[in-house]
Amino acid sequence: MKDLVIIGAGGFAREACLLVEEINRSGDGREKWNLLGFIDEDQARWGLKFRGYPVLGGWAALGELPQSAVLICAIGKPADKQKMVRQADRQGREFATLVHPSVTLADDVKLGNGVLINKGCLLTTNISVADHVSINPGCGIGHDAVIDAFTTLMWRVNISGAVKIGTSCLLGTGSTVLQNKTIGNRCVVGAGAVVIEDLPADCTAVGVPAKSVSVDN
Amino acid sequence: MKDLVIIGAGGFAREACLLVEEINRSGDGREKWNLLGFIDEDQARWGLKFRGYPVLGGWAALGELPQSAVLICAIGKPADKQKMVRQADRQGREFATLVHPSVTLADDVKLGNGVLINKGCLLTTNISVADHVSINPGCGIGHDAVIDAFTTLMWRVNISGAVKIGTSCLLGTGSTVLQNKTIGNRCVVGAGAVVIEDLPADCTAVGVPAKSVSVDN
Amino acid sequence: MKDLVIIGAGGFAREACLLVEEINRSGDGREKWNLLGFIDEDQARWGLKFRGYPVLGGWAALGELPQSAVLICAIGKPADKQKMVRQADRQGREFATLVHPSVTLADDVKLGNGVLINKGCLLTTNISVADHVSINPGCGIGHDAVIDAFTTLMWRVNISGAVKIGTSCLLGTGSTVLQNKTIGNRCVVGAGAVVIEDLPADCTAVGVPAKSVSVDN
Repeated sequence: MKDLVIIGAGGFAREACLLVEEINRSGDGREKWNLLGFIDEDQARWGLKFRGYPVLGGWAALGELPQSAVLICAIGKPADKQKMVRQADRQGREFATLVHPSVTLADDVKLGNGVLINKGCLLTTNISVADHVSINPGCGIGHDAVIDAFTTLMWRVNISGAVKIGTSCLLGTGSTVLQNKTIGNRCVVGAGAVVIEDLPADCTAVGVPAKSVSVDN
Repeated sequence: MKDLVIIGAGGFAREACLLVEEINRSGDGREKWNLLGFIDEDQARWGLKFRGYPVLGGWAALGELPQSAVLICAIGKPADKQKMVRQADRQGREFATLVHPSVTLADDVKLGNGVLINKGCLLTTNISVADHVSINPGCGIGHDAVIDAFTTLMWRVNISGAVKIGTSCLLGTGSTVLQNKTIGNRCVVGAGAVVIEDLPADCTAVGVPAKSVSVDN
Repeated sequence: MKDLVIIGAGGFAREACLLVEEINRSGDGREKWNLLGFIDEDQARWGLKFRGYPVLGGWAALGELPQSAVLICAIGKPADKQKMVRQADRQGREFATLVHPSVTLADDVKLGNGVLINKGCLLTTNISVADHVSINPGCGIGHDAVIDAFTTLMWRVNISGAVKIGTSCLLGTGSTVLQNKTIGNRCVVGAGAVVIEDLPADCTAVGVPAKSVSVDN
């Protein structure tokens, strides 16, 4: 059983904590984790306990943990997530990939490192999910979809067949991307938005159908 | 095994009936129920059978049942639900809380009396659901959400992290409330609406993003 | 164990293939299938293998298979699906009905022939689904709903209580139909649309609330 540390100590991190507990309770043969606690740069959280696990401190505290402890980044905002991962890389840390026991994955679904997939997600066939993608509960991802690194799907996002999503995108709760559409890097898709056309990089799109409201976040 | 009576005999009540049957069939250790039937004020339904269970009559019929029989209110409209519960209180009745076996609840999720949570709902951590809240299939509720008494969530409602919802609200199918937003008492949120700002009490909001269309229901 | 052939070899067909594999792996007593492969009119696909199963060829190839082999049509567009079924009828073929093991069906849910229901769908009570209806992952269908032949529900469609949907309709991902509404034959409902009024036959409706944008597809 490997040691595990959650990066972040906000709401998303506490949901990741529950995910780890549910993996550990699952009867199946998947890898179990010895959760050490949370790492968070916000000093106001140091020493607090969430679900019984301590906020261990900031990066300095992480440095004192054995190198064998692996990480999962539980931060929604892609830019912040990227910063955290860069910091962890400097410490030569490795990342775990966590999938809720309720999610079944076909043998042709490829997951990178540091991927988090929470409960109730539905994935089908020939899907590729790159490093540090965070997938919140209840998302659906169709055949041949490709999701690039650091992207976050909030709750109940619908990614249709053959969709391509760039790096560091943030897709809002209940948003939908139609078949064969491509979303560029660093896009933000609003909650409930329905993307019916390709989106260029660095744009924010909201509404039904989704319209770009700015080209720079 | 306690006796149970469903208040209401419409579609929602028949779905509650199926919920009870699925709880009773579940292998786990949760409490099972002896379902006596339905109570409904609509005389046209008296004597009918739904899924094999009789509509026993109105409040007078309930009065004849042993005091040990507990109730669940399967009525969608919050104001009607409130009336029914007041009536039941006069008879000194207690209410059951029913959760579908497919729904896993963390130990820090608090449920009041008379709560109904149907299948496929996804809840995470530190959630509070007050008395007589009805949650239809497929809803998602994030960390730290608080839902006050008598509120009804139709199918597939998305309640994001740290959302607060007042009493006697009705959230339409597929609606979404964004993180940290507060919805006042007796609000109605339209199907598919995306709430991106706080809503004051007694308003109706529809669309993406949700806009208030009236301040008095 | 009956022989089974999937009609179509696109993304939807490969998702149906995964569905068959998941049915075959399920521990429960449901009928298992000997999947022979795919039939597709597109010659460019002949001889290819998807998930280890060959594209056997077009209708001529199907004609060479034993008459005992049954079919499932895994094509989204209702008009194309109808053509395929007509062709199969000429060969006197029978159709299988496939339901994902994660989907529980009450005893009063009626399914026709050639129905496909994929994972994560939530159905309640007294629902009728006619021949060759295709239901993609994560759909929700409420009490007393009636869905007529050849209709396709894309991912996460919400069909509320007592809704009636005509033949050969296509409901887009994440769309919602409110209680008691009726949708005429051959309608198209856009992704994310919320249908709050009856739709006459042959119309296309999009948006929140859904508005008809054309009366002829």
